[in-house]
Amino acid sequence: MSEQIVIVGFGPVAARLVDELLPAVRAGQVALTVVGEETEAAYNRVLVADLGVGRTTADALALSDAGALAADGVEVRLGTRVRRVDRARQQVLLSDGTPVHYDRLVFATGSRPVIPNLTGINPDPASPVLPAGVTALRDLRDAGVLRQAVDGGKRVVVLGGGVLGLETALAAAEEGATVTVVHNGPHPLGRTIDQGGGAVLAAGLRRCGVRMAGNARSTGVEHNAPDGGFSALLLDDGSAIDGDLLVISCGVRPRTELAEGCGLSTAAGILVDHRLRAHHEPRIFAIGDCAEVRCPDPGCAACRTASGPSGLVGPGWRQAEWLAEYLTLLAAGLIEDAKLLPELPAEQPGIIVLKARGLNMAVAGDNGADPWDEEALTAGAVNGRPRLQIAQWADPEHGRYVKMTTRGGVLEGLVAVGMPRTAAELVGLFERNAELPADRSLLLRLDGPDQLPGSGSADPAGTVCRCAGVSGAVIQGAVEEGCATVAEVSKATRAGTGCGGCHEDIKGLIEKHFSPAVPAAS
Amino acid sequence: MSEQIVIVGFGPVAARLVDELLPAVRAGQVALTVVGEETEAAYNRVLVADLGVGRTTADALALSDAGALAADGVEVRLGTRVRRVDRARQQVLLSDGTPVHYDRLVFATGSRPVIPNLTGINPDPASPVLPAGVTALRDLRDAGVLRQAVDGGKRVVVLGGGVLGLETALAAAEEGATVTVVHNGPHPLGRTIDQGGGAVLAAGLRRCGVRMAGNARSTGVEHNAPDGGFSALLLDDGSAIDGDLLVISCGVRPRTELAEGCGLSTAAGILVDHRLRAHHEPRIFAIGDCAEVRCPDPGCAACRTASGPSGLVGPGWRQAEWLAEYLTLLAAGLIEDAKLLPELPAEQPGIIVLKARGLNMAVAGDNGADPWDEEALTAGAVNGRPRLQIAQWADPEHGRYVKMTTRGGVLEGLVAVGMPRTAAELVGLFERNAELPADRSLLLRLDGPDQLPGSGSADPAGTVCRCAGVSGAVIQGAVEEGCATVAEVSKATRAGTGCGGCHEDIKGLIEKHFSPAVPAAS
Repeated sequence: MSEQIVIVGFGPVAARLVDELLPAVRAGQVALTVVGEETEAAYNRVLVADLGVGRTTADALALSDAGALAADGVEVRLGTRVRRVDRARQQVLLSDGTPVHYDRLVFATGSRPVIPNLTGINPDPASPVLPAGVTALRDLRDAGVLRQAVDGGKRVVVLGGGVLGLETALAAAEEGATVTVVHNGPHPLGRTIDQGGGAVLAAGLRRCGVRMAGNARSTGVEHNAPDGGFSALLLDDGSAIDGDLLVISCGVRPRTELAEGCGLSTAAGILVDHRLRAHHEPRIFAIGDCAEVRCPDPGCAACRTASGPSGLVGPGWRQAEWLAEYLTLLAAGLIEDAKLLPELPAEQPGIIVLKARGLNMAVAGDNGADPWDEEALTAGAVNGRPRLQIAQWADPEHGRYVKMTTRGGVLEGLVAVGMPRTAAELVGLFERNAELPADRSLLLRLDGPDQLPGSGSADPAGTVCRCAGVSGAVIQGAVEEGCATVAEVSKATRAGTGCGGCHEDIKGLIEKHFSPAVPAAS
Repeated sequence: MSEQIVIVGFGPVAARLVDELLPAVRAGQVALTVVGEETEAAYNRVLVADLGVGRTTADALALSDAGALAADGVEVRLGTRVRRVDRARQQVLLSDGTPVHYDRLVFATGSRPVIPNLTGINPDPASPVLPAGVTALRDLRDAGVLRQAVDGGKRVVVLGGGVLGLETALAAAEEGATVTVVHNGPHPLGRTIDQGGGAVLAAGLRRCGVRMAGNARSTGVEHNAPDGGFSALLLDDGSAIDGDLLVISCGVRPRTELAEGCGLSTAAGILVDHRLRAHHEPRIFAIGDCAEVRCPDPGCAACRTASGPSGLVGPGWRQAEWLAEYLTLLAAGLIEDAKLLPELPAEQPGIIVLKARGLNMAVAGDNGADPWDEEALTAGAVNGRPRLQIAQWADPEHGRYVKMTTRGGVLEGLVAVGMPRTAAELVGLFERNAELPADRSLLLRLDGPDQLPGSGSADPAGTVCRCAGVSGAVIQGAVEEGCATVAEVSKATRAGTGCGGCHEDIKGLIEKHFSPAVPAAS
């Protein structure tokens, strides 16, 4: 008899899990149900802002084909909520009243936007009803609202200086909207970036036509538009930022209420162990944005420094792949093999990359120390552990900034603004824990005026798509086998199906393949 | 009848004036008297520290040969003071009671060390009697005192973090003494350098074996040595820095008391106009460390920003050359030609260069602003004048730091530590008011690991000896005509006769000339 697996949620991570379980479904070992709240099957939520400014289409965002899945035998329940999980009976109760039995249950409920407590906005976190002209830019409908504003050349106010807010602002400004980013603190990205990088980043945003309102605390929204919709964001100094659309980009919060409702342990997210199992409940798993890997063993070193969910799609996809393999083994009755399956390695600390025409930035790790702050640099340098060292290039006039924070020559933090090739190289070194050249200034040469186009970051083993974990060599292989567009490469390799930040790099690899060899100078 | 010229003082600047007046003396147009307080004829005071650590000889320091001058008809009065100047009678009264008539009188009295007000040291600035074991390292005798301490491997305490103190400390440490530099503020060089450069400089000094005692305020000296001499420098926090010799390096003060005594106007130095004439006294001139060029015209733009005497030998030498030409014309009766002689151009703001084995530094101009200090960067940017821009490379781990402060692409300030070729290039750009490359990071490549020896700063028109103002091309010419040592080049071109900072560069040019062409790689 086949094992009944139910997946709650149908976002990008659930879609990957479904894909990976398909062979077992087809083989009759797994009976799979996936329950999605939205009426659409999984789509790439990361690119909703791109859709909102007209750079991509809803079709291009689609990650699953509900019809094809159904044909493969997957029970796809769209537009349906799970009301309740009954662990004693091993069943979920759907919003239409149907109970569905499970042998294994997977939470892939993702996260929901954080809606700040502003006068004029319903602050109920579980069901925020946003007024007209205010959007959190989360689903396809939100994209449509932004699209209208951008096409109409309207004034867009982005609340929040995180990377998603900045990307939305840059894209909307480039497509013709008048955009203001309102954020706390002296520069965007908060403590993720350091002062120098933040200052150069803010200047770069301004240069790209985005207005920046820093050190701002918003208190409420005004609804004086002719249709009663949003007209201004009110600040605590009594001033107001007028606009036609407010995009709230204040981060996300894992959706855990269903798990809490059935008595599972949660912290920021649903607590799972290194096999993605809910604490003390071997039949229930959680992956993606709703899951927090932190095992019940208080002595576990890996969990001591673990942070909450990353909010990035890549780690969720890797969890989905691992869990599919694990569940497939269990469904096949290979319990011992499942036990022997190596645990998922801990994720690298997040690398944040911002790529826009005219503005490139990469940030990773800890960048809080400053080259002259002996106290910060020597903290933790005990028992022979080397101290932190910092090398820094600042050229704000030309929008360039690099900071490399190393310990024993290996990056613990990096900031690169306006230096795309240096950024790519540093990100690669950071991912590989590789030692930097002793003369750090060599790295700056990658963005020197004498660098030939296409000559940078040529290591084919290097990761091009970090979301899906695809190397340049794999992409080159796909191109050599006939893929001639980013969409074709994405289909063949999954590269570019996440945040989209690698699309230009994929394009570059395609162009390199199809361009004739450079003739010798005559 | 020949014109009687009297020079008061016989240091390097007076020596140059004597040299340049010799043709007129030999022609019988000038009767020249030079009065020197020391028993030696002029010698290179800048290198007294080098003599003190045994790196050079008194002979090599000599700048004048009293016997040869006398043979040429110059009246050389050594070991003699001028007691008084009687302007009404146009005569000076010497310490032996002799009156000497003058038609033109030139003050070249130089400066004396500043002796800080410390318990245990006579603070009378006009005649400081320093106790045993304390020296201001000003004359040949002082050099002997330092020499004894260095040869004995004694503990030397240098009071003062200026460039001369640092050079003395580095040289003494390298020659085997235990050296501590005591200075105010968080880093040496005070406001001449910025925080980052100062921090890297201090670390470099420590790496060279010099102990650094910063943020120190000294209050007195202790005399507990067996001979009753110096035993410790006392600080205001109650601590003491033990040592066998105290070298006071707290700057110099122009010697103006003789000029004041005869009623001339003085500020920091003896006030002279752009023709080096004392205010309202066309028969008296002042040059070198004792002179302050600031004309009586309150509307003179050049004088509005003028600072006091530079304390550098180069500007004094240029004044001596100019004045010799001027006085020669006057002595020849060519009054109109003298009037038409173009005024001496204003001196560049000082460039401070520190060259030691293992530590190189150059600082010039104003380096107070920081890349993120909008207020400092935009101050003065009015009426279309561009704002200041800063590019900065900091790699303290490897002892490297560069800061370029530009306005409209041209340097207004520079700091370079641990990057000798970048420093040389920046100093050249600063002197020529030349525009920097838009990508400032190109300058860092000069000190990259792939630079061939001798390939840097190859512009032969560039100044190699800034004290004497000698270009690389002139030195190359001398080498091609047979000069094979620094001393020979110095004799032929005067290059290297000042601070000595260019000796390595001159050596490099000699070696380049005599080394065989590099054979092609086989």
